[in-house]
Amino acid sequence: LDYQHVQVPFEITLWIMLASLAKIAFHLYNKLPSVVPESCLLIFVGLIMGGIIYGLNDKSPPVMDTDIFFLYLLPPIVLDAGYFMPSRPFFENIGTILLYAVVGTVWNVFGIGFSLYAICQVRAFGLRDVSLLHNLLFGSLIAAVDPVAVLAVFEEIHVNEKLHILVFGESLLNDAVTVVLYKLFRSFCEMPAIKTVDVFAGVGKFFVVGTGGVLVGLTFGVTAAFTTRFTKDIRVIEPLFVFLYSYLSYLTAEMFHLSGIVAIIACAMGMKRYVEANISLKSHTTVKYFMKMWSSVSDTLIFIFLGVSTIGENHEWNWPYIFFTVIFCLIWRALGVLVLTFFVNRFHVNTVTSKDQFIIAYGGLRGAICFSLVFLLPDFRRKKLFIAATTVVILFTVFVQGMTIRPLVDLLHVKRKRESAPTVGEQIHIRFLDHLLAGIEDISGHWGQYYWKDKLEYFNSKYLQKVLLREYDQPKSSIVLLYEKLERKHAIELAEAGQLGHPPSHPSLLNSERIVTTEKKSEDTLRPDGLENMQEILARNLYRTRRTGPAYSRHTLPGETEPAVQAQELLILRHRSL
Amino acid sequence: LDYQHVQVPFEITLWIMLASLAKIAFHLYNKLPSVVPESCLLIFVGLIMGGIIYGLNDKSPPVMDTDIFFLYLLPPIVLDAGYFMPSRPFFENIGTILLYAVVGTVWNVFGIGFSLYAICQVRAFGLRDVSLLHNLLFGSLIAAVDPVAVLAVFEEIHVNEKLHILVFGESLLNDAVTVVLYKLFRSFCEMPAIKTVDVFAGVGKFFVVGTGGVLVGLTFGVTAAFTTRFTKDIRVIEPLFVFLYSYLSYLTAEMFHLSGIVAIIACAMGMKRYVEANISLKSHTTVKYFMKMWSSVSDTLIFIFLGVSTIGENHEWNWPYIFFTVIFCLIWRALGVLVLTFFVNRFHVNTVTSKDQFIIAYGGLRGAICFSLVFLLPDFRRKKLFIAATTVVILFTVFVQGMTIRPLVDLLHVKRKRESAPTVGEQIHIRFLDHLLAGIEDISGHWGQYYWKDKLEYFNSKYLQKVLLREYDQPKSSIVLLYEKLERKHAIELAEAGQLGHPPSHPSLLNSERIVTTEKKSEDTLRPDGLENMQEILARNLYRTRRTGPAYSRHTLPGETEPAVQAQELLILRHRSL
Repeated sequence: LDYQHVQVPFEITLWIMLASLAKIAFHLYNKLPSVVPESCLLIFVGLIMGGIIYGLNDKSPPVMDTDIFFLYLLPPIVLDAGYFMPSRPFFENIGTILLYAVVGTVWNVFGIGFSLYAICQVRAFGLRDVSLLHNLLFGSLIAAVDPVAVLAVFEEIHVNEKLHILVFGESLLNDAVTVVLYKLFRSFCEMPAIKTVDVFAGVGKFFVVGTGGVLVGLTFGVTAAFTTRFTKDIRVIEPLFVFLYSYLSYLTAEMFHLSGIVAIIACAMGMKRYVEANISLKSHTTVKYFMKMWSSVSDTLIFIFLGVSTIGENHEWNWPYIFFTVIFCLIWRALGVLVLTFFVNRFHVNTVTSKDQFIIAYGGLRGAICFSLVFLLPDFRRKKLFIAATTVVILFTVFVQGMTIRPLVDLLHVKRKRESAPTVGEQIHIRFLDHLLAGIEDISGHWGQYYWKDKLEYFNSKYLQKVLLREYDQPKSSIVLLYEKLERKHAIELAEAGQLGHPPSHPSLLNSERIVTTEKKSEDTLRPDGLENMQEILARNLYRTRRTGPAYSRHTLPGETEPAVQAQELLILRHRSL
Repeated sequence: LDYQHVQVPFEITLWIMLASLAKIAFHLYNKLPSVVPESCLLIFVGLIMGGIIYGLNDKSPPVMDTDIFFLYLLPPIVLDAGYFMPSRPFFENIGTILLYAVVGTVWNVFGIGFSLYAICQVRAFGLRDVSLLHNLLFGSLIAAVDPVAVLAVFEEIHVNEKLHILVFGESLLNDAVTVVLYKLFRSFCEMPAIKTVDVFAGVGKFFVVGTGGVLVGLTFGVTAAFTTRFTKDIRVIEPLFVFLYSYLSYLTAEMFHLSGIVAIIACAMGMKRYVEANISLKSHTTVKYFMKMWSSVSDTLIFIFLGVSTIGENHEWNWPYIFFTVIFCLIWRALGVLVLTFFVNRFHVNTVTSKDQFIIAYGGLRGAICFSLVFLLPDFRRKKLFIAATTVVILFTVFVQGMTIRPLVDLLHVKRKRESAPTVGEQIHIRFLDHLLAGIEDISGHWGQYYWKDKLEYFNSKYLQKVLLREYDQPKSSIVLLYEKLERKHAIELAEAGQLGHPPSHPSLLNSERIVTTEKKSEDTLRPDGLENMQEILARNLYRTRRTGPAYSRHTLPGETEPAVQAQELLILRHRSL
């Protein structure tokens, strides 16, 4: 027996296996996942595992390694989130999201930090040695809403798209703020004296870390899109580039102390459109499937490890500090959401309702990021207290808030996600309105979102697509190809049924391309100019329909409807119309 | 800048990126890969990289780590090979393959070992300190044909299926022999005296290592198949199990000093059939695609690392030893193939032609396995000489033999792989003959391969499928589903064209299942009994057609023909027949 030799890969494989089998086990009993969120079940499994390890070895089980978390477990989840991010609602609400993510997080950090410092002044609690800086440092790590936890819960409760993107977008983008504040306070803790210039440098860093992340991400995204232009002869390695470039963007950003999460999201969102058009359909299925699979496993492992790491002797228990941490986390978040939404609603027609506000405040779940950050703290006397408080906040938010949010959503009748995808008619109207509004904005000189969107679209089709797409003048999206395929099939069927005006001979049947051309020509005589435009609009909107259909979910792929079913439905529809 | 923090994943990602980009670059110029095998180009890239590293640092570049090779790079390639192994030719020639792999390898080891020892006795060469045991040890590592190198070359020259499986199967299965002999001689080298019992124990180990590997592999394969029965509700993690279980089988086998390669092949071949039936079509695409991608990257990395590791100061140059190593490798392999084939041909109707024999002997390429094994040798005075000789043999076989084998195949008019897949008619005949021969063997009491195949098939459908498949009484293979889909479509088309006897009303059109049933019934009146059997046979053989169609290739997936094309061809055929 030579266990040492294979230990590392063997244990990694076994952990992943455990995670996957746990997932299967939960889904065997259909009732369980509908009551308790999967994240809670997984933490529970982790607690049991941790208990077993603790019981057998009589020492604390290993805590989740921070490097493993940040370098290997987090990127797949964020990549998946960025790649499947519904871009329209995201960019429509980008202002609100940024406000929540930046101002809201700063508000929470200082709110929690200062009020905990106030608690520390109460002599009876025995916490007078915890300085203001330490409290602020703790605030900076406990304030950040965790994307992994938010995703795990929100994908199961199906709230409306806007609400979903507000909470989820905030949880992703606050990373930049958290990173900056956390590092700032940590370095302040080690400095003998803090100068005013340091504080200003800290504020400046916000912008560098955020925009730097975006720039790094976009650079890698564009490179990835460009690379996939040349993979036509070796389709099998196409999916690889999507993963390699996004991972590189994350690592590069981390290397320069920028926000890796922001970078990988920018990379994924930037490349998606072009990569999708360049790579083959099978490659794309693989990319999507593997991303889902990977993030699903990462997510499972994170929650299990969270559970395992909770067990042990890392904790210092202080009732008042822990109790008030939970309370302040809830209060400051609620206040922040209320105040910020008040300003947001003054500038928007489509306001955030008070029910939505409640869910935003209540959905501020904490997770593995806080946990990793607290273990990264430099050793000082009260580190174990911070660990205990963080653990309690995470367990409280994931278990109590995570389990009650679904009943609350039901109780409050929060607007749900629409189940059906928007119709082509709706899509055409939306698109039409977009153009209209862009025109109005252009004329009135108000450079709003529609104006910029239009400009970006123009820049994209004029320059970017020419460089990044392999066959620019060819049909771009898979749905256009499907459309052509259906047209071709239709022609063959007509030929078979003898319903074509002039039944084609054998050779032309084999070359079905030509049938389509003749068909097109015969229609061309009817509407010589408008047809091509109409097709273009239809194609684009069919494309949109498929893309914007179902909102983000960890466990399903968008567009799961089988092509066969689609084709059948089309045929039935056509039969009716005859 | 914090490079240290991200160094490990960053460098791994960069190496993979380099490998992928090199692959793209080769395929940009179509002429290059058709003359020079990709493996040579990759080694060349590695040599350049190594030269650059050597030039910049003025010290030897890092050699390929043996653990990394055996634990991370080799398994994906072997898994891919096992999963896509064409099982019919493999099992038809299993006897010949085993003869080549076991007896042939032993023959080569001892042949090369003893004759090199003879060379060492020549005083002028200055090699008298190399003992017989060291020569045998060297023989055991240099004798083994390398699956990675064989695959890389043979997938490009498209020889007939039997020849391909003979060389490729040998290269895979000789792992068990190589492992045993290598470890045996290595332990002999360290023993003070060798007893007879040790030698017999060594011979006994052959069987343990080989059959143990098969057992471990089959155990994990069956478990994997069983696990995928329960993944219906979480499709996204289905592909994971294929990878996890096969990797575990490899690691477990390695842990118990069994043959990991044999284990992973047994696992892949054992689970394939059931996993394919259990998991969704998209999951299966992902599995296939990812396997190809992964093995392709591993293979690329191995050849690049081979090139990099060649550069440096690890070599001791001794002309006669190196020259005679190359010569003996060629001679003993040629002799071995001649003698063994002589015996094989006496027992087979379908003989191995002399051209085939030449290609089998000439295709005995050495690669990264030898290279890793030679670095694993315990340190002794002449290790650097062995490293130099191994490197030269690898480079000689990969470059000289690898580049000339294609022209030789052309020159000798070696029988090529048939380009078209066998027709359904052929397949039905093959299957019919199988049953016939099984019957004859059963009656005559000769328990040959057909008899066992029939028994296995019976056991499979009677017991295994019931345990391992999710829906046993449902149609089992994807092609049956396709067949049903086509039938349904046909019915709809007939309905549309008004060619159905009694044009169905709207409700029945929507429930297209019923049309199929009525259609079936109308045919049933014609041939009441035989129809179901015919459909069964047709379905099975359509299934076979798809599976056995294209032989193994690294860069393409079998059955790449688009379903749309298939459907179109079917329609055209039907139109002709009308």
